[in-house]
Amino acid sequence: MGVPGESKQFKAGSTLPKLNDKGLTVFSMRFCPYAERVRLLLNVKHVPYEVVNIDLKSKPEWFLERNPLGKVPAIEEPGKKPLFESLVLAEYLDEQYPGSRQVVPKDAYEKARQKVLIEVLAQKVTVPFYGAFLRNEYDALSAALDDVEKQFLGSKFFAGDNQGYVDLMVWPWFERLPALASLSEGAFDFSSARYPKLVAWSEALLSDPDIKATTYSKELFAQFIKGRDGDAGL
Amino acid sequence: MGVPGESKQFKAGSTLPKLNDKGLTVFSMRFCPYAERVRLLLNVKHVPYEVVNIDLKSKPEWFLERNPLGKVPAIEEPGKKPLFESLVLAEYLDEQYPGSRQVVPKDAYEKARQKVLIEVLAQKVTVPFYGAFLRNEYDALSAALDDVEKQFLGSKFFAGDNQGYVDLMVWPWFERLPALASLSEGAFDFSSARYPKLVAWSEALLSDPDIKATTYSKELFAQFIKGRDGDAGL
Repeated sequence: MGVPGESKQFKAGSTLPKLNDKGLTVFSMRFCPYAERVRLLLNVKHVPYEVVNIDLKSKPEWFLERNPLGKVPAIEEPGKKPLFESLVLAEYLDEQYPGSRQVVPKDAYEKARQKVLIEVLAQKVTVPFYGAFLRNEYDALSAALDDVEKQFLGSKFFAGDNQGYVDLMVWPWFERLPALASLSEGAFDFSSARYPKLVAWSEALLSDPDIKATTYSKELFAQFIKGRDGDAGL
Repeated sequence: MGVPGESKQFKAGSTLPKLNDKGLTVFSMRFCPYAERVRLLLNVKHVPYEVVNIDLKSKPEWFLERNPLGKVPAIEEPGKKPLFESLVLAEYLDEQYPGSRQVVPKDAYEKARQKVLIEVLAQKVTVPFYGAFLRNEYDALSAALDDVEKQFLGSKFFAGDNQGYVDLMVWPWFERLPALASLSEGAFDFSSARYPKLVAWSEALLSDPDIKATTYSKELFAQFIKGRDGDAGL
């Protein structure tokens, strides 16, 4: 297959495709930030995997058998039952597939500290993010980002001086902000004038070639946001 | 102090009490099932800790400084910043404080499998649980428990033949079911006739003296549910 994750979506009534019999299959949706957490982790570790995209508006029966919660990401490995939940998968995959680097901190306290920060940032940003994404409500998102900029980005990265687990796990939501801004008709400003630290952080992450390679253009994200079509641009 | 967790709640305007300078302080609320996850894990491992109870309807300012999400459980250790989120804490404490037994599985796949099951059971049961707890709506809870009984309890414990991490982490919600049933005026039946496997599982967990020792009576839970008062019975 070509770029991982670039295949069309499977829908209700479809037949289960042949899964990767040599390693990992990732059930994903190209624009789902939770699924991106897992693809991003595997990409920065240079761990190979195959992707099966799921139409979240018309889920295949064989997918619901794999994940009773019906959500992506999920994974399957030969001879093992499927697993799901993005953060459970991230920790599992980091441990099970060492690849070229370890992402989750080895030290118990530092690991817990970053996991707490992932939850705080997720809860602060996710709710207003979907207000902007689904209902064009931008004020709560702008205020949440002011708070994140001021209170939680005390160093170059959320993890500290170097990029870490927390940065990868929260990146998918921040990655989509330029597309949201482009659709907001001026109501939402994600510029370095307004958010100097967050924009510098975004640029620092995008200077990592593995992260850059998994990032869609602002235009493609905007196309998805307008149409809610996971096959957008294919 | 006496039985861990039996002290009165601290409210807004209170002064920070002296924290445990030799080890763990757990910020809790006696009847909070999330906080109970952490106390239960520490109890079965025989790890000592001190408890500071928080009035969740009138949170002390010093607590909100520790956890910007304002939730219990949270922990603090001398010289370290506080941590929170029940499942993050459970994994951290199991690793950092070995105590008399390991609770979280060592094997990466088995650990992930149990973490997935915790999420599935939490999502299936938690939402209808609060419908029953807050609004006396019992039908959705009964149906969810039918599903859990039939689909997810294929062995004596959720973890398998032996009690495991998933059992401890979901127990607090099930522990409260007899109290909910006693208040339901017949609308909710948590008997072995209706749920033979779940009731047998509850009895098996309660035969563990460490779990039994942290369990409140049906009457005390019912008193809390009626008054929503974390100091109930003190």
